[in-house]
Amino acid sequence: MEAMKDYMLTVGEQARAAARMMARAEAGAKNAALEAIAAALEAAEAELSAANSRDLEAGRRNGLEPALLDRLELTPPRIAAMADGVRQVAALPDPVGAIADLVQRPSGIQVGRMRVPLGVIGIIYESRPNVTADAAALCLKAGNAAVLRGGSEAFHSNTAIAGCIRTGLEEAGLPADGVQLVATTDRAAVGALITMDEYVDVLVPRGGKGLIERISRDATVPVIKHLDGVCHVYIDDRADDDKAIAIAVNAKTHRYGVCNAMETLLLHRGIAERVLPALARRYGEAGVELRGCPDSRALVTMMLPATEEDWGAEYLAPVLAVRIVAGLDEAMAHIARYGSAHTDVIVTEDYSRAWRFLREVDSSSVMVNASSRFADGFEYGLGAEIGISTDKLHARGPVGLEGLTTQKWVVLGDGHVRS
Amino acid sequence: MEAMKDYMLTVGEQARAAARMMARAEAGAKNAALEAIAAALEAAEAELSAANSRDLEAGRRNGLEPALLDRLELTPPRIAAMADGVRQVAALPDPVGAIADLVQRPSGIQVGRMRVPLGVIGIIYESRPNVTADAAALCLKAGNAAVLRGGSEAFHSNTAIAGCIRTGLEEAGLPADGVQLVATTDRAAVGALITMDEYVDVLVPRGGKGLIERISRDATVPVIKHLDGVCHVYIDDRADDDKAIAIAVNAKTHRYGVCNAMETLLLHRGIAERVLPALARRYGEAGVELRGCPDSRALVTMMLPATEEDWGAEYLAPVLAVRIVAGLDEAMAHIARYGSAHTDVIVTEDYSRAWRFLREVDSSSVMVNASSRFADGFEYGLGAEIGISTDKLHARGPVGLEGLTTQKWVVLGDGHVRS
Repeated sequence: MEAMKDYMLTVGEQARAAARMMARAEAGAKNAALEAIAAALEAAEAELSAANSRDLEAGRRNGLEPALLDRLELTPPRIAAMADGVRQVAALPDPVGAIADLVQRPSGIQVGRMRVPLGVIGIIYESRPNVTADAAALCLKAGNAAVLRGGSEAFHSNTAIAGCIRTGLEEAGLPADGVQLVATTDRAAVGALITMDEYVDVLVPRGGKGLIERISRDATVPVIKHLDGVCHVYIDDRADDDKAIAIAVNAKTHRYGVCNAMETLLLHRGIAERVLPALARRYGEAGVELRGCPDSRALVTMMLPATEEDWGAEYLAPVLAVRIVAGLDEAMAHIARYGSAHTDVIVTEDYSRAWRFLREVDSSSVMVNASSRFADGFEYGLGAEIGISTDKLHARGPVGLEGLTTQKWVVLGDGHVRS
Repeated sequence: MEAMKDYMLTVGEQARAAARMMARAEAGAKNAALEAIAAALEAAEAELSAANSRDLEAGRRNGLEPALLDRLELTPPRIAAMADGVRQVAALPDPVGAIADLVQRPSGIQVGRMRVPLGVIGIIYESRPNVTADAAALCLKAGNAAVLRGGSEAFHSNTAIAGCIRTGLEEAGLPADGVQLVATTDRAAVGALITMDEYVDVLVPRGGKGLIERISRDATVPVIKHLDGVCHVYIDDRADDDKAIAIAVNAKTHRYGVCNAMETLLLHRGIAERVLPALARRYGEAGVELRGCPDSRALVTMMLPATEEDWGAEYLAPVLAVRIVAGLDEAMAHIARYGSAHTDVIVTEDYSRAWRFLREVDSSSVMVNASSRFADGFEYGLGAEIGISTDKLHARGPVGLEGLTTQKWVVLGDGHVRS
């Protein structure tokens, strides 16, 4: 236990020292490191596959579920995709050093804000080994040092990937400790990592809700976290029927296990009769189970009754709760009460209602006439995302390079003093 | 204990409900409320003075120190200044609703970020009753609901001020619970406030370091906090002597008990002989006690020897630590080791060194050729400040209206679905 703590403190000290060098690295050096990492990953395909086989064998022995085994597997195309992902991060603009809003103040000083790295970022994640490369690339590009703690089931795969990252950093003349993988599967390492305030500036946990709740509860280091995605689509009576159906189908059926999938459909009483039967047919064809309020069950008999639990459920599955409401106010009240402030959509042609929904719904993404599935760092133009934040402070919604930086004030004077 | 918790939960529920109305209030209504609050404060001068007398009498009875009694006192000019402060906040631009960077993405959707209130802000503060009006005005203008918990020594004064705020809110048609003062001096109320995650979005403690550390440690609600201000001025050997002396004198002697006062002076070995004796004379005239490294004591004999504790000390008093360094790297290493990442200054005419200092010193404010005393929301043009953050996430340095808001993503489509 003490040895583990000492080890983690060493990791932390090394990360802090590396962070200072990463922060002043030029874009060229960081991009060269990313290119070298991508090349190292491609060159190491055989070693990565061998390391991954050890994890897969252990996983099978330990009775890991097929879905988890699939997520764990590193096939040659997945290794190539991982290298490509790193190259895409190299191609993004460097956020560090930009000075915004430099203005002259009445005192004569010039004041602005410079974008700077956060420092040391701790990433705690579960089975997918590609997160090792993705997260490292984003932290590196934003000028941070990273401490990565992957799942024990992917330990050999992650270690092999981390070796490639180290090679790339060294080739580009950046500190090898700029990205460190915690070299133990001991769970006490996580406890140490999330309480090393002196060495870690922010934590980004990636994984199931249980993992994130546990880390948020115990961490003293600030956490950028992603909890529920209970997303709503509200179809207003002034909606265009075709747009409404297209959006409601896409938001539910495009992918089921994702945080930006619709989980509850709200329909204005004045349009439900027109669009709900058509929607129910489409959902039926897709194999989506519907659970409705009494009014919606009166229109579509094959629906199961929705219970109070359904309104707050994040199914992540082909299941949809359906409720008929009297209008915009009732829809927004439902969203405020049962939603998770992730992504909510209104479908309407009415200007004033669209505007009210945009203004008043307090979610990380609010949309008019678009599928909730667009709530994504790539779709929003961030180039990449480290995760989606359901917090309000610092970073809200999809988090890209900017979320991995902060701004400091810069003041340029010429001998100015305060009077 | 249970009754207190119930009371605080009621306060929290009321704040959450009021926050929804405050968030959609138009700038005109919020400004009308601020003007009405200012007028109510002026009209209530006699009541405010009477309430304040009760606090002052109790304070004297309880042996409150003269400095604290002075901070507690509400004179007619101070009441007028408080009303003026509220009017100044009314005159600031409304941050809410601005949409930044609305761009069309390849998918056809328009994506941007709308500035929105944080929700419910908890302010915990000590003796100065004017914070009640200042903090309420800033929270209100930014579209938030506020829960204020002032010091027990100012309870009657704060209650009277909160009455004026309530009057102003009601006159403008805004919810009276938009600003609530916790109506008890029971300390258990603070414990409840800082753990009501469901009802409070962020805490801004204002007071001594002990208060802030206690709250940060025990809070489950996120805290925007201000800890130490161990600020440095580094005089490079390529500094202009006159600017160096003017800045070093101003940064130390302009005011002593403030977080942006210089606490340690670093001098390049090549300039110390020229400027340190002159500076020591100026500090001597001002009554500033100097504590120096051996090299600086060789130049100025009247200095006391500095101990290791002096390098990390936030004196908030006419005391200054002085150290001679070999150059920029040693200065920056000293700042990284002993500083508090608040405000640090380089005085130099050298372009490359100025630029390195700006880039590499990881403090909330970094300055070239200007006094550290400029690190202030008013001097930076924020119009007002709720505090100075020493955190890196969300808000760093002086925090104005923008720090009391967040941004949500808005997506405008026309039936767009994800393919």
